[in-house]
Amino acid sequence: MKIPIEVSARHIHLSQQDLEKLFGQGYELKKFKQLTQPSDFAAEETVDIQVGSKSGGKKFDKVRVVGPLREQTQVEISLTDAIGSGTIPPVRLSGNLKNSAEVVLYGPVGQVELEEGLIIAQRHLHCATDEAKELGINNGDAVAVQVGSERPVIFQNVLVRVRDSYKLCMHLDTDEANAAGINKIGEGVIL
Amino acid sequence: MKIPIEVSARHIHLSQQDLEKLFGQGYELKKFKQLTQPSDFAAEETVDIQVGSKSGGKKFDKVRVVGPLREQTQVEISLTDAIGSGTIPPVRLSGNLKNSAEVVLYGPVGQVELEEGLIIAQRHLHCATDEAKELGINNGDAVAVQVGSERPVIFQNVLVRVRDSYKLCMHLDTDEANAAGINKIGEGVIL
Repeated sequence: MKIPIEVSARHIHLSQQDLEKLFGQGYELKKFKQLTQPSDFAAEETVDIQVGSKSGGKKFDKVRVVGPLREQTQVEISLTDAIGSGTIPPVRLSGNLKNSAEVVLYGPVGQVELEEGLIIAQRHLHCATDEAKELGINNGDAVAVQVGSERPVIFQNVLVRVRDSYKLCMHLDTDEANAAGINKIGEGVIL
Repeated sequence: MKIPIEVSARHIHLSQQDLEKLFGQGYELKKFKQLTQPSDFAAEETVDIQVGSKSGGKKFDKVRVVGPLREQTQVEISLTDAIGSGTIPPVRLSGNLKNSAEVVLYGPVGQVELEEGLIIAQRHLHCATDEAKELGINNGDAVAVQVGSERPVIFQNVLVRVRDSYKLCMHLDTDEANAAGINKIGEGVIL
């Protein structure tokens, strides 16, 4: 079974509280584009972020917000983004933010300084319950997925996340995708 | 046997003719740092480059020159570098520049517009003749190398290049290294 692949560029998930600090009280995200996972959408809104020390570090403008809102704000960048900023955030599964890296967000109304919330996303495979059964994999498994043709790569330790509402798709970040010669979308095979 | 890994950031190899166009007649490269392969050195000199269309595209300042001089000028960038420039150069082994991408170089004295010379480097393994014998591999082989711990990756299609003067070392570009969580140096194992 072919595994569709999507490439995640740097992006931001916001909490209600941080959304309002950045965009104003009562602000609501506007949907720009539906993403493959039915619950997720790219928002029209973007935010500028500062990674690493506030004097030096690296600034990234217009980083896309991905909705819906979450309990805790989470910023995902690549290792390429991080190098040179003075901060190397940990590789983490989405939502696991304890002792992750600090980051500053700048919105049109205000700014948010986070002690933690910045991560490099761990590669993972979204999977519906029936798809998992068909593939013989379970939530929490780590699988190896072969990807790419001209620059073939086997990504090991791809974490499987099963939920009824998910749709089969592996998420790579831009470093991983580029290392395998994939631009935006691709496909792979579980080994 | 552990395979040492070195990460190649974007860099430039110059021909005598292009060196003189950029830096002036009779100019000679100054050695900045010896590299692992005994013949190669990072030069003190850097060059600005323009990738993609001359009106748009992307400009990279102070790209390191690597000596010694070669028959033909060659510029190596990552796919991350290329994306957004309007040009995606081919993945090529060093020296194989036919129908590679165009690039413009800016030096302190002049500029050089190349119709071809811009590539994304194909991952490869330098190897001395006796090391190749010990590893049971031959010049031109494509091997798979496992790399990384937290972000483990198996790089397939790693081209083996054997020469008496080489020293055992796999070269990855920054996308490949970052995808495997390697910063500057690392090590791998041939599978």
